[in-house]
Amino acid sequence: MLDGVKALTFDVFGTVVDWRSSIVREGQVLATQKNLTGIDWAKFADAWRSRYRPAMDEVLAGRRPWTKLDDLHRENLELVLKDFGITGLSEAELDHLNRAWHRLDPWPDAVAGLTRLKRKHILATLSNGNVALMVNMAKRAGLPWDTILGAEVAQAYKPQPAAYLKTAAFLGLRPDECLMVAAHNNDLAVATTLGFHSAFVARPTEYGPGQTKDVKAERQWDVIAKDFVDLAGQLGC
Amino acid sequence: MLDGVKALTFDVFGTVVDWRSSIVREGQVLATQKNLTGIDWAKFADAWRSRYRPAMDEVLAGRRPWTKLDDLHRENLELVLKDFGITGLSEAELDHLNRAWHRLDPWPDAVAGLTRLKRKHILATLSNGNVALMVNMAKRAGLPWDTILGAEVAQAYKPQPAAYLKTAAFLGLRPDECLMVAAHNNDLAVATTLGFHSAFVARPTEYGPGQTKDVKAERQWDVIAKDFVDLAGQLGC
Repeated sequence: MLDGVKALTFDVFGTVVDWRSSIVREGQVLATQKNLTGIDWAKFADAWRSRYRPAMDEVLAGRRPWTKLDDLHRENLELVLKDFGITGLSEAELDHLNRAWHRLDPWPDAVAGLTRLKRKHILATLSNGNVALMVNMAKRAGLPWDTILGAEVAQAYKPQPAAYLKTAAFLGLRPDECLMVAAHNNDLAVATTLGFHSAFVARPTEYGPGQTKDVKAERQWDVIAKDFVDLAGQLGC
Repeated sequence: MLDGVKALTFDVFGTVVDWRSSIVREGQVLATQKNLTGIDWAKFADAWRSRYRPAMDEVLAGRRPWTKLDDLHRENLELVLKDFGITGLSEAELDHLNRAWHRLDPWPDAVAGLTRLKRKHILATLSNGNVALMVNMAKRAGLPWDTILGAEVAQAYKPQPAAYLKTAAFLGLRPDECLMVAAHNNDLAVATTLGFHSAFVARPTEYGPGQTKDVKAERQWDVIAKDFVDLAGQLGC
């Protein structure tokens, strides 16, 4: 059934990279540099991330024009810093902290798995992250994408159908020639409705030790893998 | 002066790949398969390529909506086949021949040079080729792009300024943080007007042995290189 799959399209935040631990790491570096004490950086990371969907919903609903994720992150950062009582950062420090999302670390299996998957498949991002974020992240982490696609080039955020369909169209492929890879059941649910094949890769600590959502596959997706190396094996790469 | 350059943006047809020899090769394969005799495939390649600019000009002038290069190539192919008296190709054969542009061979120095350049720089296409064409070409030829950008994602063909400016914007860079690499003086002329840095790489046989245009740099571009390995050396990669 997956013989006709030519491209693997990837969710990135949570699926390929461990955003939470990486934001915590960046916060700890900042804390040392600026003598900030008493901040729970895991809570900071969760707070920053929790503002992502509501901000994006404004764009999804058409209440504000297209705004790339870097800009949504920056607006949200300023709100979260205020909530945590962190003040006195320079513009350069704010920009550097905002670009923490460009410096997220991959899960330990990601680079090895992607490198194997790339031998037989086109690998493209299908993320809500903007192009510069994805390019800089890949460059730093060694993620071997064939190309960066997704929200910014489609000018549509997931779960809007256009984010998926335009990504397939840019690749010159039908949806059924694409396999969506994600650690999130709802991402795969939308993709399969549009004709994509589906691969679930469990990332049960994406949201930290107490994660309750997406700890496992909630449907019989085409592939259910424990990590990217397992995915490569299951796809015969 | 080039210390601030973060990304190299590449013209592809002629600069990275040898389209003319590759189309000749594909024509010769077709001739053998279909028992076509007496066709000068170099003339065929030149005829096909010569229809590219007039077709694109219709889009540039706004007389037809955005049309990707694969589709312009296909329309032009049917005209050229008629001119050369080649008939009886099936839809699958026509599609395969049209995708000859996805199977162009790189110049001998291209992969080695790009691989070195990639160590220090973001490498992105800034070509009029559509995304699928560029992805498939890169996959076959081993071109190590960090991402595919250019005309289709910008929805503007070079030499329209938007093709260059949107490519830089997708990378999150100012034009002066980008170095345009091309074998064509006019491509560099437009790019530098917009603030890009410039590197000329001579491809004096792109149009065959009788080439008269672009045989050498016609201005003092920032870098003038004899091939991509030389370019890597000059940029300290």
